Amino acid sequence: MRTRPLKVALLGCGVVGSEVARIMTTHADDLTARIGAPVELAGVAVRRPSKVRAGIDPALVTTDATALVKRGDIDVVIEVIGGIEPARALITTAFEHGASVVSANKALIAQDGAALHATAEQHGRDLYYEAAVAGAIPLIRPLRESLAGDKVNRVLGIVNGTTNFILDKMDSTGAGYQEALDEATALGYAEADPTADVEGFDAAAKAAILAGIAFHTRVRLDDVYREGMTEVTAADFASAKRMGCTIKLLAICERAAHGGSVTARVHPAMIPLSHPLASVREAYNAVFVEAEAAGQLMFYGPGAGGAPTASAVLGDLVAVCRNKLGEATGPGDSAYTQLPVSPMGEVVTRYHISLDVADKPGVLAQVATVFAEHGVSIDTVRQTGKDGEASLVVVTHRAPDAALSGTVEALRRLDTVRGVASIMRVEGE
Amino acid sequence: MRTRPLKVALLGCGVVGSEVARIMTTHADDLTARIGAPVELAGVAVRRPSKVRAGIDPALVTTDATALVKRGDIDVVIEVIGGIEPARALITTAFEHGASVVSANKALIAQDGAALHATAEQHGRDLYYEAAVAGAIPLIRPLRESLAGDKVNRVLGIVNGTTNFILDKMDSTGAGYQEALDEATALGYAEADPTADVEGFDAAAKAAILAGIAFHTRVRLDDVYREGMTEVTAADFASAKRMGCTIKLLAICERAAHGGSVTARVHPAMIPLSHPLASVREAYNAVFVEAEAAGQLMFYGPGAGGAPTASAVLGDLVAVCRNKLGEATGPGDSAYTQLPVSPMGEVVTRYHISLDVADKPGVLAQVATVFAEHGVSIDTVRQTGKDGEASLVVVTHRAPDAALSGTVEALRRLDTVRGVASIMRVEGE
Repeated sequence: MRTRPLKVALLGCGVVGSEVARIMTTHADDLTARIGAPVELAGVAVRRPSKVRAGIDPALVTTDATALVKRGDIDVVIEVIGGIEPARALITTAFEHGASVVSANKALIAQDGAALHATAEQHGRDLYYEAAVAGAIPLIRPLRESLAGDKVNRVLGIVNGTTNFILDKMDSTGAGYQEALDEATALGYAEADPTADVEGFDAAAKAAILAGIAFHTRVRLDDVYREGMTEVTAADFASAKRMGCTIKLLAICERAAHGGSVTARVHPAMIPLSHPLASVREAYNAVFVEAEAAGQLMFYGPGAGGAPTASAVLGDLVAVCRNKLGEATGPGDSAYTQLPVSPMGEVVTRYHISLDVADKPGVLAQVATVFAEHGVSIDTVRQTGKDGEASLVVVTHRAPDAALSGTVEALRRLDTVRGVASIMRVEGE
Repeated sequence: MRTRPLKVALLGCGVVGSEVARIMTTHADDLTARIGAPVELAGVAVRRPSKVRAGIDPALVTTDATALVKRGDIDVVIEVIGGIEPARALITTAFEHGASVVSANKALIAQDGAALHATAEQHGRDLYYEAAVAGAIPLIRPLRESLAGDKVNRVLGIVNGTTNFILDKMDSTGAGYQEALDEATALGYAEADPTADVEGFDAAAKAAILAGIAFHTRVRLDDVYREGMTEVTAADFASAKRMGCTIKLLAICERAAHGGSVTARVHPAMIPLSHPLASVREAYNAVFVEAEAAGQLMFYGPGAGGAPTASAVLGDLVAVCRNKLGEATGPGDSAYTQLPVSPMGEVVTRYHISLDVADKPGVLAQVATVFAEHGVSIDTVRQTGKDGEASLVVVTHRAPDAALSGTVEALRRLDTVRGVASIMRVEGE
């Protein structure tokens, strides 16, 4: 075993970074045995050096992250700052100065993964980011390596813990969105400004990364269709229950049936209670993968938090260090195809539509005609009425999203349709 | 990209081998892109060369497996023969002649993994066996690599599809063991001689492999405590339901609380319906992992079958080929600790005990005294009686298994205890 330690620079020492530093210290012997050489924390770049950091030698702390990654003796840079800049510039500089990089930065990887991979390859270094998607759940490595001999056709994931907590609360207690969000905020599951979570931005970044890795192609953040879950109501959950479903905010990446294109989207959807994703509770994440040979797989675990994210970072650290010792690099970018990403209108899915309609003869016939005119086949209709007002719940068969949304537009123009109470896609069947 | 193909020898061409050959042919372009060089099926060793094998060039087929692995130009040997010999000798010969090995052979790895790893390392070759445990579910790689920076404390797995199918059927239909086994046999989920599955031998081999990898130590097949599930009854399921539980055949690998020893065992156990493993249906497998930093993870998917197992084999093939091209080897054996494996008596668990007792005053007091004398604390007691006969269901708190089984022995000796109807451990709480 080599005794000169591998030197690690840690960029960021918040919730995740401090856990990474703690485990590197307390589990140093295990890491040494697993890597084949000791690892040494050589520097920690922070914004506020005055903040007390338990267990970290103050002499290692610096505010000059750029100088740290430029030192030249750093073997691995761990980037847990988040955001685009200065993370991007620091990672690029790290590669240029001979370091490999472990990152937990989903926004940056979703936006600039291709360029960063190219820079890593150019300098013969590794770029690993298991922690960027679904926290501690091993997902990137299984997709990139375990399924490397298979063909993934579909990825269906609950990849945001905040929204899953809110939806689970609505499902189990009958609470409305605001009430459930307030509870999530009080318990620390939602941030003061929950926009990135509840509007699906966080999940969309993860969908872009997952789609790219699953289909060996390039999927940019802008390619991901996105709808948040702020308009999901208690009434939607009641409808879902009647259908034997629950509602989840899903990241869905699919290869088109003809194989020549892919899609990626984030939106709330009804899924059957019998689907393994339906029983994913609280802030847990889970990703369901359908592969040609492997069949249906699911990966489940905590999607966020300091310690779980640190676990993923340290798994990558061990891999990158082993590669470094073996003078090798791990599997790099695998986007060897350039499959077009189809727009949402071409996605084939099912709709669950609730309409408030006039309670008089002929309304159902009118509504059914609109569906037929748009080429959308109806699976089931449920009609309930009282006091001259009626409610019509229509569940369609599979059809292109454009045909379904065109149908809804036309329904809105009918005199007998007072309003469209809710529209939700139905997935996982 | 290098154009000289990597040469692959396939040992065995049954359900799994023929799928491996099929995918290597139909997905050749994808494999080439992912590996960085073409792979070529250079030979297929079979026992019965006369059997027609669709899609395999008859010129590649041989009955002389030894000559095939000795050719000297083989880069990777895929062993899907199963059993100890000739698989062991062929794998050893393969390493000696410069090939890396991908195996799906749980029995061999459980028995001789250490020696085979040593031979592989001595010759600078890889030994991969993702397919040996839980079929297509990426499990070995996540444990060895993704969690390499974490400390796994517990692995709780449904790793045998046949027995899960039988138990799920008993749970959902109220069928008895024999009836459910007959259905499993008729549907092809159970073999004509189901002993290896229903007596837990198959699961025990997987438990030995999982415990070794999870705890970085050596766990031999003989170290694994094993009880089959042939004595689980419909009445046990009724009892389980009353407790909000179901019954699964579990492989359980644990690190002792003090950290200085490990245990591995296979037996039927009650688990709460709220546990993610409880909803694993039919012949699916799932493995629940508890790690210090990552928390609770679960890996779910098909645990057997030609295509799923082939997916795992091909994932390993891609990894091994990449290593070969990079003139590196992957993470080898990681049993760097030599933790003692404690006997079953030292395992701390809970018992659910059903007793047939005389329906007269003082029986409960007598029974409770026996528990107290053995230092076993009672959690709940449920007593039901009619016509002079009564049934007593006792659920204990956690206690060493030796104390629990000592309690049961003493209960059997009580005059007022007519019989011990069932004993089952309670896990996953």
